[in-house]
Amino acid sequence: MRITEMIKPMGKNPVYGFIGLGLMGGAFAIAMRKAGFEGRFLACDTDRRTLQAAERDGVIDEGFLSPQAMLPRCSFVLLCLPPKSALRFMDAWMPAFKSGALITDIAGIKKPVCGHIEKILRADLDFIPGHPMAGTEKSGYAHARDCGFQGRNYILTPLARNKPENIAFLKDLIRRLGFTRVVETSPAIHDEKIAFTSQLCHVIAASLIDCENDTSITRFGGGSFEDLTRIAILNAPLWTQLFIENSGPLVRQIEKFETSLSRIKALIAGAQTEKLLETLAAVRDRRTEMAKRG
Amino acid sequence: MRITEMIKPMGKNPVYGFIGLGLMGGAFAIAMRKAGFEGRFLACDTDRRTLQAAERDGVIDEGFLSPQAMLPRCSFVLLCLPPKSALRFMDAWMPAFKSGALITDIAGIKKPVCGHIEKILRADLDFIPGHPMAGTEKSGYAHARDCGFQGRNYILTPLARNKPENIAFLKDLIRRLGFTRVVETSPAIHDEKIAFTSQLCHVIAASLIDCENDTSITRFGGGSFEDLTRIAILNAPLWTQLFIENSGPLVRQIEKFETSLSRIKALIAGAQTEKLLETLAAVRDRRTEMAKRG
Repeated sequence: MRITEMIKPMGKNPVYGFIGLGLMGGAFAIAMRKAGFEGRFLACDTDRRTLQAAERDGVIDEGFLSPQAMLPRCSFVLLCLPPKSALRFMDAWMPAFKSGALITDIAGIKKPVCGHIEKILRADLDFIPGHPMAGTEKSGYAHARDCGFQGRNYILTPLARNKPENIAFLKDLIRRLGFTRVVETSPAIHDEKIAFTSQLCHVIAASLIDCENDTSITRFGGGSFEDLTRIAILNAPLWTQLFIENSGPLVRQIEKFETSLSRIKALIAGAQTEKLLETLAAVRDRRTEMAKRG
Repeated sequence: MRITEMIKPMGKNPVYGFIGLGLMGGAFAIAMRKAGFEGRFLACDTDRRTLQAAERDGVIDEGFLSPQAMLPRCSFVLLCLPPKSALRFMDAWMPAFKSGALITDIAGIKKPVCGHIEKILRADLDFIPGHPMAGTEKSGYAHARDCGFQGRNYILTPLARNKPENIAFLKDLIRRLGFTRVVETSPAIHDEKIAFTSQLCHVIAASLIDCENDTSITRFGGGSFEDLTRIAILNAPLWTQLFIENSGPLVRQIEKFETSLSRIKALIAGAQTEKLLETLAAVRDRRTEMAKRG
């Protein structure tokens, strides 16, 4: 009953379109199948073998190398491309979307995406910008099943023009995929917070690897180094784009971190036991508090 | 057959002594019971309730608030105290050890420990300095069962005077507890490498928490921040001591990291796409190589 009601915005025979069937696009299609979404699953990707694999797996019903014939059929479109490619896609294929379609994306930066979409979006389409806080250090459709959504956060930065019933539909879809918390915020706040929780952490992991030439260093590993640098196995072109497109907030966050690091280094170098102990105890308390709210 | 042979250095009715029954001491006693070590398990701790709990759990046979009556009975002593306390303990109780006893420690810094032990150790005792690369962000005997040894590294920094049969016994014991790799190295190399894989990572985690006032930040978390800062829930007095006692190597490692971080920041701030992409691709390759050797 509830599902039927929530699916209403998609009509009786919904057609779901996935643009880009890599790690995230694949993970969404797989998770939506698992969650029991009924309707046709269409996907567009530049890699023919990925489409064939997904058809064989029963993850999608039809694959397309071009969105031309696919977009006019889709009532829901999930854009799973890197931010710049997503915007180029919207520019190029705007006329092809089905009237009334709900579109959403997964780009890790939202200000440039939202600003551009607001300028170019057709009046009869709805685009709700989103960012699923999930992923793995692996890339591509082959690893899509390893990308868990259970217990994860999902951030939406709705546009003023978004229809409430579409936002409700999308939030319900997100929760049915296993995400536990949907946060609504502005693109600017998203980009500032994500620069800290995600991008800065990737920059730190990359720096830790960049500064260490000894590839046998894990002989001396006890888990911390491994945990801190797992994300250094990153999709380099994607993260290059995310870092540079969000360079303002990211550089601010790096410098905020550098200030703390430098202060703690000075306490260590100066053997300031009392102050260091106080700092570490405060850190412990704050992280414990964060875990409670996590 | 093999077990009997390896236990030989401990005699027919071995008595194992645990000095400090916190997270690590408790984890060792529990793991040794599980691995089937036969003999008496004695433990000394300043906390009476910990000793009572461990006796009730069947983890130890007898608990002692002072090592006075316990040490003369132990053929094997595992010192599970913070580095400075371990040295103070050795200074204070040296006369009480049983002649021929094998002693080992778990201190996270080895140069100060080895230097001091070499100066003060009785001629009829053997002390093999060690460092199990295991732990958890929790502390105390109550969490000892959460401290897994499976698949972990164990570093030994043997002294020139260590008896080969004692080293062989200790290595066998370590492997029977689940550790997969025993690395033998010098105290100086240990302290330099550990400053990187362990201490620097804890300093980074602490700095990440120190620089962020928003305790609701995990609403925007996607796993990276959580993974990088789990170790910020640290035993503040212990890590204060480890950082300050190893400040030379640690400050060098922090500065090595700062140089890489600063270089990557400059690439981001300057929108140097090609160079950033190159750096991140090299990082990805190096981390992948490290994982293969891990």
